[in-house]
Amino acid sequence: MMAKKVSELAQLTNAIIVGDGDMEIRRVASLDSADAGDIAYVDDAKFFEAARKSRASCIIVRTDSELDLPCELQVKNPKLAFALIAEVLHPPKRRPPEIHSSVVIADSANIALEVFVGAFVSIGENSEIGSGTQIRAGAQIGDDVTIGNDCVIHPNVFIENGVTIGDRVIIHAGVVIGSDGFGYVRGDMGYHKFPQIGSVIIEDDIEIGANTTIDRGALGRTRIGKGTKLDNMVHVGHNCDIGERVVIAAQTGISGSVTIEDDCVIGGQVGFGDHIHVQSGAVIGSKAGILPGKIVRPGVWWGIPIQPLDKYKRLNAHLSRVPHLREEVRELKKKIAQLEALLENHDG
Amino acid sequence: MMAKKVSELAQLTNAIIVGDGDMEIRRVASLDSADAGDIAYVDDAKFFEAARKSRASCIIVRTDSELDLPCELQVKNPKLAFALIAEVLHPPKRRPPEIHSSVVIADSANIALEVFVGAFVSIGENSEIGSGTQIRAGAQIGDDVTIGNDCVIHPNVFIENGVTIGDRVIIHAGVVIGSDGFGYVRGDMGYHKFPQIGSVIIEDDIEIGANTTIDRGALGRTRIGKGTKLDNMVHVGHNCDIGERVVIAAQTGISGSVTIEDDCVIGGQVGFGDHIHVQSGAVIGSKAGILPGKIVRPGVWWGIPIQPLDKYKRLNAHLSRVPHLREEVRELKKKIAQLEALLENHDG
Amino acid sequence: MMAKKVSELAQLTNAIIVGDGDMEIRRVASLDSADAGDIAYVDDAKFFEAARKSRASCIIVRTDSELDLPCELQVKNPKLAFALIAEVLHPPKRRPPEIHSSVVIADSANIALEVFVGAFVSIGENSEIGSGTQIRAGAQIGDDVTIGNDCVIHPNVFIENGVTIGDRVIIHAGVVIGSDGFGYVRGDMGYHKFPQIGSVIIEDDIEIGANTTIDRGALGRTRIGKGTKLDNMVHVGHNCDIGERVVIAAQTGISGSVTIEDDCVIGGQVGFGDHIHVQSGAVIGSKAGILPGKIVRPGVWWGIPIQPLDKYKRLNAHLSRVPHLREEVRELKKKIAQLEALLENHDG
Repeated sequence: MMAKKVSELAQLTNAIIVGDGDMEIRRVASLDSADAGDIAYVDDAKFFEAARKSRASCIIVRTDSELDLPCELQVKNPKLAFALIAEVLHPPKRRPPEIHSSVVIADSANIALEVFVGAFVSIGENSEIGSGTQIRAGAQIGDDVTIGNDCVIHPNVFIENGVTIGDRVIIHAGVVIGSDGFGYVRGDMGYHKFPQIGSVIIEDDIEIGANTTIDRGALGRTRIGKGTKLDNMVHVGHNCDIGERVVIAAQTGISGSVTIEDDCVIGGQVGFGDHIHVQSGAVIGSKAGILPGKIVRPGVWWGIPIQPLDKYKRLNAHLSRVPHLREEVRELKKKIAQLEALLENHDG
Repeated sequence: MMAKKVSELAQLTNAIIVGDGDMEIRRVASLDSADAGDIAYVDDAKFFEAARKSRASCIIVRTDSELDLPCELQVKNPKLAFALIAEVLHPPKRRPPEIHSSVVIADSANIALEVFVGAFVSIGENSEIGSGTQIRAGAQIGDDVTIGNDCVIHPNVFIENGVTIGDRVIIHAGVVIGSDGFGYVRGDMGYHKFPQIGSVIIEDDIEIGANTTIDRGALGRTRIGKGTKLDNMVHVGHNCDIGERVVIAAQTGISGSVTIEDDCVIGGQVGFGDHIHVQSGAVIGSKAGILPGKIVRPGVWWGIPIQPLDKYKRLNAHLSRVPHLREEVRELKKKIAQLEALLENHDG
Repeated sequence: MMAKKVSELAQLTNAIIVGDGDMEIRRVASLDSADAGDIAYVDDAKFFEAARKSRASCIIVRTDSELDLPCELQVKNPKLAFALIAEVLHPPKRRPPEIHSSVVIADSANIALEVFVGAFVSIGENSEIGSGTQIRAGAQIGDDVTIGNDCVIHPNVFIENGVTIGDRVIIHAGVVIGSDGFGYVRGDMGYHKFPQIGSVIIEDDIEIGANTTIDRGALGRTRIGKGTKLDNMVHVGHNCDIGERVVIAAQTGISGSVTIEDDCVIGGQVGFGDHIHVQSGAVIGSKAGILPGKIVRPGVWWGIPIQPLDKYKRLNAHLSRVPHLREEVRELKKKIAQLEALLENHDG
């Protein structure tokens, strides 16, 4: 465990220090669980009381919070500062370079010197593993795979032949990258496999959640852009092109040939038909469903099939009043019947 | 295979015997497939005919069934009795204690004497494995993991550093426990990882379905309570607190910091936003969607977003009559136009 | 890489040749990415311009396309011909027979001569592996498993005891077949496991996507029929009977005891309650939800719960006009009030 002075953490986060800059901080913690030596953060005013009661040695606050705690780091974005400080106090485990005696590495593979390869890992022909990368127990790496520097490939991952992975990529356990896409052509006797002979490109600074699957391109390639984050059990179909800094929550499924441009945010359990094009900056709510071929413009989208969120909300409000509407129509019918009777009497 | 006398099975299930208590029973079976030596059960009257035709040597029935079969075990809950009898006749496979020669176990790990460890398993520093536990081929166990007694860890499971697992826990193949949660803070240049340095507690008597993922707490812990059962491909996010005897069907996704109290029943493909609190005894139908922060009271819930089931059904009934309602409004318009014309003529 | 003459490919696909039958073709490619030595296909007229510009040496076209390219294979179904040609030009990788020195195979297992078994594979008691089958690194095969000829079992797959797999089956990485189904009986103290002691039958010519799970029968068996294709992360519950040539897209979940007859097409993220019976030829749209016990007749189905697609579309069109309907009712109310006032004055 690393320890840092409050002043060092202030420098890291461009913070104004209130209190003792020489105090040593060893861990990040939540307001409630923090103890001496810990740093916590508070942003929302509803947690100010918890901040006052916290036993944390120092608390990261907004510059304008006026909390007046004994030790504060004042910043613009406390949660971001907290994340940056956690990166320093709790760096990801860096296993020392070692090739476990049980591993099976092809002679033609090219493994950098400073690499950790755990037990029961296999690495195929012509594959390259960059410096600082860790490949944990039970991961299987195919032929002609390129993995960059400082990646972590967690246990039981499988990376199929021909996949390219950039630098500082984290791939959680059970992930499968480069499996065949789902494409068939119906003949007289059943289905024939459409060729699935393309590749996959995973760019830099990507994190991929546990048991997620990313299929290879049918003819071209499947791409995940720099800085993008996928949660657990996301399915990315063949030939998808996911841009940079896209966030996709758990169990979302993306059919083949979908493009998602940079800086989109996709909720969990969303379903994409094929050939959808999501434009940069779009936000798609959890459980949404999108029909094949749709172009999704920037803005917030919701529902099955998706609509702009405000329209979705408005329609749902209208629908919730249908029982009342039916009541009203029943009333009108009665009144009209009365009017009709009245007029008939009149005329009579 | 074990064999038991009908009388022994009657004792086990507090059953009244009809027929020969000395008959030997070797297997449980369905009414249709049962043969001599098998025991089956019948509860619903629509299967009484199948029970009469069954070749089972003995059939478990309700005390009040009046089926008059040659050999019956009469009980209050036939399906429960059947399950208890199956536990005795078909105990889970107990592999004899053995540490396969291929395994990689850290010197500091503490493995009980009566443990089965299959091929290609690794167990990290300071981890403890309790007596009677079976760890099957290809499972990878990290550092500082505690696994209790009489657990079965099926093949290719991954249990990350610091996870604690109780007694009699069954973890099916491909499960990942303790992977990083999905939390980021957006900075100017992209996303920074929010710390994911908490732990996971899996209590006693839990079963976890194949390829399910359970993320570790961000700062605190993720907990699954005693006696809870998760189906295949369930996603449990960071800091969730799932109570005791909760049942969660396949492909349900639970975002971070969700609390589900004891004795809830959750259908398949349900989606939970974060910070939801489900109170004890709630039942949530399959494919439901629940918005972040929602408090779900006891009762049966349905739909996206969830509503009480009866309200959901009523609203849907109303909505299905909207086409008719539009027809009615069209009629009313006509009548009013006629009335207006009539009055105009009148006045004219 | 294989190379074939245009004339050989014409023979394979019953095509009429336009141009030089002796030209050598080495690869399939898309119209855009194709280069000399490649063959591409075009079907939809909107890609005719791309076909004219393509650098492909030969293009597969419809017999009636009138494209007049320098080299054409004219066929009835260009995409099917393309798939058949890809099978020849890009046959699936066939690893030479080899049993890796690290594998653990039970003495009683029966492995054909021409089999590839990769690193860190285990094969249990009495299991049989047919000729031409490839079992890749990290796959774990239980006891009493039968795998036919010419199968590919990709890395980190787990096949549980007693599962039977036919010929030419492709099982992608991370798949789990034969795990316990999800069945419990509630007793006074919590849940008891309903026996999960049945089997799984996977017939011939099946492909199963990455991280899919197929549970064993509780008492009987789970079956996947010949020629059926499952995408990634599909869940098949205990005792399901999936027919022949069924296609099921990613992340669909099928509860226990569901029957899907031959030649059905099921979209992604569909949810099936238990004991559903889908009749041959039914098509179920993505994200649909089907209530337990439902019989689904042939035709196209959509929505939660499913309805015939045309009915679903009609109802949704009606619902989208509810805001307008409420407006109309408001108008009618006003008019009736006016009429009432008018009549009152009249009478007055």
